[in-house]
Amino acid sequence: MSTFREQALAIHKHHQGKLTVQSKVPVKNTEDLSLAYSPGVAEPCRAIFQNKNEVYDYTMKGNMVAVVSNGTAVLGLGNIGPHASLPVMEGKAVLFKAFAGVDAFPICLASADVDQIVQTVKLLEPTFGGINLEDIAAPQCFEIEDRLKAECNIPVFHDDQHGTAIVTAAGLINALKLVGKRIDEICVVVNGAGAAGIAITKILHEMGVPQILLCDTKGIIYEGRREGMNPIKEEIARITNRKKMQGNLADALKGADVFIGVSVEGAVREEMVRSMNVDPILFAMANPNPEIMPQLAKAAGAKVVGTGRSDFPNQINNVLAFPGIFRGALDVRAKEINKAMKLAAVYAIADLISEQELHPDYIIPDPFDHRVAPRVAAAVAKAAMDTGVATIH
Amino acid sequence: MSTFREQALAIHKHHQGKLTVQSKVPVKNTEDLSLAYSPGVAEPCRAIFQNKNEVYDYTMKGNMVAVVSNGTAVLGLGNIGPHASLPVMEGKAVLFKAFAGVDAFPICLASADVDQIVQTVKLLEPTFGGINLEDIAAPQCFEIEDRLKAECNIPVFHDDQHGTAIVTAAGLINALKLVGKRIDEICVVVNGAGAAGIAITKILHEMGVPQILLCDTKGIIYEGRREGMNPIKEEIARITNRKKMQGNLADALKGADVFIGVSVEGAVREEMVRSMNVDPILFAMANPNPEIMPQLAKAAGAKVVGTGRSDFPNQINNVLAFPGIFRGALDVRAKEINKAMKLAAVYAIADLISEQELHPDYIIPDPFDHRVAPRVAAAVAKAAMDTGVATIH
Repeated sequence: MSTFREQALAIHKHHQGKLTVQSKVPVKNTEDLSLAYSPGVAEPCRAIFQNKNEVYDYTMKGNMVAVVSNGTAVLGLGNIGPHASLPVMEGKAVLFKAFAGVDAFPICLASADVDQIVQTVKLLEPTFGGINLEDIAAPQCFEIEDRLKAECNIPVFHDDQHGTAIVTAAGLINALKLVGKRIDEICVVVNGAGAAGIAITKILHEMGVPQILLCDTKGIIYEGRREGMNPIKEEIARITNRKKMQGNLADALKGADVFIGVSVEGAVREEMVRSMNVDPILFAMANPNPEIMPQLAKAAGAKVVGTGRSDFPNQINNVLAFPGIFRGALDVRAKEINKAMKLAAVYAIADLISEQELHPDYIIPDPFDHRVAPRVAAAVAKAAMDTGVATIH
Repeated sequence: MSTFREQALAIHKHHQGKLTVQSKVPVKNTEDLSLAYSPGVAEPCRAIFQNKNEVYDYTMKGNMVAVVSNGTAVLGLGNIGPHASLPVMEGKAVLFKAFAGVDAFPICLASADVDQIVQTVKLLEPTFGGINLEDIAAPQCFEIEDRLKAECNIPVFHDDQHGTAIVTAAGLINALKLVGKRIDEICVVVNGAGAAGIAITKILHEMGVPQILLCDTKGIIYEGRREGMNPIKEEIARITNRKKMQGNLADALKGADVFIGVSVEGAVREEMVRSMNVDPILFAMANPNPEIMPQLAKAAGAKVVGTGRSDFPNQINNVLAFPGIFRGALDVRAKEINKAMKLAAVYAIADLISEQELHPDYIIPDPFDHRVAPRVAAAVAKAAMDTGVATIH
């Protein structure tokens, strides 16, 4: 009987990785070749040369997403570099295809330099219909995404930020229904100020949460804090921690309604849960082991607990978001994935669970719920059209 | 009844291009997902982080070639740019897969700048096992290839140069057998001093042809010529036109044994064929129409005629070379594709036609001769091992 580790290595070694490139056209004889290659290929080339938009009609571009990483912040593994990150990016591409029929291709870049990465992705733009940034360290990931969004005419989406934020927000909407609290009256504590923590804080702010205390290893982030700050933390603290609360994570949690952890195993103890407001909600998403184990959190009074793991209820899994989001964006050739599209994805995911089905152990759809990607895609496409970033209707 | 143009457009539009990315592993349930993605994917990541070479065991890299272009010199179409070149690069990838099982992916770069292209391809190196440069204008293509060969640890091969040169050389070896001339006693005229013409001239020089007159639109290239020169033309002229012959193409052909055209329709007239040495050989490879039509060349005394077209005998087609060359290089994880490997491919292609089969209308295998790629691959792999550039045996 082989171990899980051996099985995982074997499945990767057996086929030499997980992805293959296939032809959609036959190449069995001279006639096939003359249509798909020389001389027939000159016809779509001429058509695109005359009208660049026809690249979406005659090539793979319109359904092809680049999964771009440099391996500087791989989930649970840290800065392992571009080569070692390739299995993750292949896996991501497998998910894109399996969950939403999106063709995706790993682009693992040998650089940690913001300018080099931005320029490289810009030069790659003709080949791809969208860019999924993945596992790039903060704070570089913020500048890379911002610059690419400004300079590219195709959607750019950093999944570690927005995918996590969207699924977290969807779960929170449903958890709040269970405890009978309104989003505009809660206090949320987010622990971990990397890509995911920042994006979660931003989207909850946009959705109307009045007070969000974002914490890092030095405690609550507040405007003017001296240690461990960067421009994005400064900005976030100014808008979400307007009372300039200070202290450590335990201080932050006193009286809070919601804990969202994208940090490390064991960051939350039972007494910290007991110090929270009535019916606390905890999303303990540290990987592979949560900030607090669900049974301990429940024992300490937690009403709803979610984690990142498939072996506990309420798995907060990005795969609920990114395949459908890109499917929707590609279907209408959206020029970007904007706030309205992200919020449309949040509500599409949350709304899949009816009031009747809603339960403390079922606040978010299962990753294999096949309704998810089509619903998300439709909602995202509609939001793209409504906000004028779709180029076909 | 639809026209050829309509059919060519339809086959490209029907599936939205020609390539798709497929998973080689199942993703049907939570267990599949846990092996191919989180948490199982961490195992191959760790293995590669500890030993970078294991990227060849656990990922797609070892069978994945980037087909890199910027669309500045697309066959028969010229400088149409990266978007319009994508159908060609998809087609190339289709051929890689169909003829040699090599996964290949188009990378169409929005740049005509040598430094930008070199840097981009270098940053992409972790993802790919080889680089096929395609349809990049001369003379930039020479510097791009030279720098990438020096700075990358994977094979870099500019097919417009070397693929064309290899198949041309293979055809010439067999044509010379038919006319009973030795390669070290002939005079060859090459018309067209772009990527293909330069590479053909170089490989024939390496194979021992004593006099090669390379011509461009200004006539024979000779050392010290004033107009239309560049460093590579200067170097080629010095080593292959040692007598510093001058004149136009008609002057060059007087008494020549072989004409090789990678130029334009109609460049060769019948009287020019008649001025050549006895039993002249003409490879008139201009696209889509040859420098001289085969029947005219034959009527003027040509003994063997080849073209680039599938509707005439002796099609000089790159597809005879590049799939098998990369198959062989990837099979032994060659660090480069060196001269010995290219010459091994030349002789592997030529040797497929026995002395008994050899005929003026059959000097080169058919593109669909399924013996070709495996033979070329085996010969190239052996040459890589013999010259010490293979990393597995």
